[in-house]
Amino acid sequence: MNELRLIDAFLAPFGLSRDARAAGPGVLSGPGDDCAVVRPSAGRKLVLKVDELVEGVHFDWRWFEPEDVGHKALAVALSDLAAAGARPRWFLCALGVRRKADALRTARGMARGMAALARRQGCALVGGNVTRAAGWSVSLTALGEAARPRGRGGARPGDTLVVAGELGRAALGLRLLRAGRRKRSGGERTAVTAHLRPEPLVGAGLAAGGLAAAAVDVSDGFLRDLGHLCAASGCGAEVELSSLPVDPAVRAAGIELALSGGEDYALLFAVRARNLRRLLAAIRRTGSPATAVGRFVAGRGIRLLEHGRPRPLPTRLGWDHLA
Amino acid sequence: MNELRLIDAFLAPFGLSRDARAAGPGVLSGPGDDCAVVRPSAGRKLVLKVDELVEGVHFDWRWFEPEDVGHKALAVALSDLAAAGARPRWFLCALGVRRKADALRTARGMARGMAALARRQGCALVGGNVTRAAGWSVSLTALGEAARPRGRGGARPGDTLVVAGELGRAALGLRLLRAGRRKRSGGERTAVTAHLRPEPLVGAGLAAGGLAAAAVDVSDGFLRDLGHLCAASGCGAEVELSSLPVDPAVRAAGIELALSGGEDYALLFAVRARNLRRLLAAIRRTGSPATAVGRFVAGRGIRLLEHGRPRPLPTRLGWDHLA
Repeated sequence: MNELRLIDAFLAPFGLSRDARAAGPGVLSGPGDDCAVVRPSAGRKLVLKVDELVEGVHFDWRWFEPEDVGHKALAVALSDLAAAGARPRWFLCALGVRRKADALRTARGMARGMAALARRQGCALVGGNVTRAAGWSVSLTALGEAARPRGRGGARPGDTLVVAGELGRAALGLRLLRAGRRKRSGGERTAVTAHLRPEPLVGAGLAAGGLAAAAVDVSDGFLRDLGHLCAASGCGAEVELSSLPVDPAVRAAGIELALSGGEDYALLFAVRARNLRRLLAAIRRTGSPATAVGRFVAGRGIRLLEHGRPRPLPTRLGWDHLA
Repeated sequence: MNELRLIDAFLAPFGLSRDARAAGPGVLSGPGDDCAVVRPSAGRKLVLKVDELVEGVHFDWRWFEPEDVGHKALAVALSDLAAAGARPRWFLCALGVRRKADALRTARGMARGMAALARRQGCALVGGNVTRAAGWSVSLTALGEAARPRGRGGARPGDTLVVAGELGRAALGLRLLRAGRRKRSGGERTAVTAHLRPEPLVGAGLAAGGLAAAAVDVSDGFLRDLGHLCAASGCGAEVELSSLPVDPAVRAAGIELALSGGEDYALLFAVRARNLRRLLAAIRRTGSPATAVGRFVAGRGIRLLEHGRPRPLPTRLGWDHLA
């Protein structure tokens, strides 16, 4: 195997080749040159996010197909752009390749999964890097544009906490994959798909526009990411457990999956009272569930309520990427 | 060790913290938020490059200090921006961390080397990612701006081939490090530094401005990278060996080090006759040597001459990143 053959295999599913100098809106020079050159839109800010998936840490070849890994590597970066309310435009991908007989097949599969999502989201691969490594890894830098990007700061006491998407499915899916059972119910199959192929809520993030004061995506766990939002905004939050958007399979398996499971790629929004109805309607029009699950309060920390009564926080709040 | 402590250790040498929302010109939101937000300059194109250094592939802890790795990870990406004639603005860094007792020290050292170069080049760390991995790796995405970025295409028969910087030193340095001798001459110490701490020729790349028709940086080997430039431009090249900018230590060790050694991070320019004198002077004013070493010709491929007489190409042209 050599580098150029692997690059060709990776570029093909994108409809690109090493000779192709440019492909896509705003792309002046693409993967065929040393650097990518793009034309930013006038008056927009550039929103940037790098994420990395590592074999044995973020994915396990026993249940991930290469297509899943490629999809997920792009999806997790786009999910952050979605929280910021940015429109995905371009991305670069650095591939760590474990040299084995099937490396070409693996690279091609990853590219297929990534290219299909990229096409749906209208963002173009513009550059990359290939190196050998001890294990497979995909480091992905996504670039989006927004007139007024949202951050984590900006929530105020009195704002409503809204979840777009659902919680706990991906963690249930991972648990089912680890258990290794083959026969699965419909709800269980949905959970497995949520883990392998999370769908970034880009449409919901754009629809929320200026109606949300702050946002974060749920990658490390609902409580942990909500905690980041609260810390950045200098306030606390109260969450009503019975309102959380979780399906019956998750509730049966344990609400902790929704609270600290991670990898949901749902979006959390802080919304002023006057914008709440419009925000819920705007998100629902994109096909995502949108649910008011609590409110931001003065002070610090997160309090859980169940039908209005205090409930203790789980011991584990979410993922530590080095633990 | 946990993730947040490692991120704090990495951010400190940049004068950043997880709470710092923004730092640097054009930076609206930095590593403290989920996404970075930057403001592109009006009328400029954005020039993008991702590169990755992997433990055991691109660096060996027997002779690299963490500071060297951090420096080099940024340097190799900036070298590509230099070839394009772009001014470095921002970068993102995804770190793969091997969990060991000294991981914090290693991360802090990498950041020190990276931050010192970033400061000299006026570009700001705006985002990153941390994950555990089987070995250390640094994936770095650099963003620069240019009104008219140069690419590899654009050389024409009759253009002069100019080298900014020197060739072969880094390969000699690697050979010396592998040999493990402790006592080194002045020339040998310079060669070792060229391997551990290459200096990207950003000033030379900017000075060349519109005077060069095409450019490439020498990362994989002079002949291999010149070959890329020729292929993209649809022409060939003739190189006069006796003109190559190599120091006596390299010439004594074998001119192949300069032809196919790689990692020089010199810049190759294709220059029309009318611009040659001005280009040489402009580059030299930045402190880099600038040397005319050959010319572009009709046809394909590269011919080597020694005092005007044909000489065979070496068998190995440069690096394959998967070999």
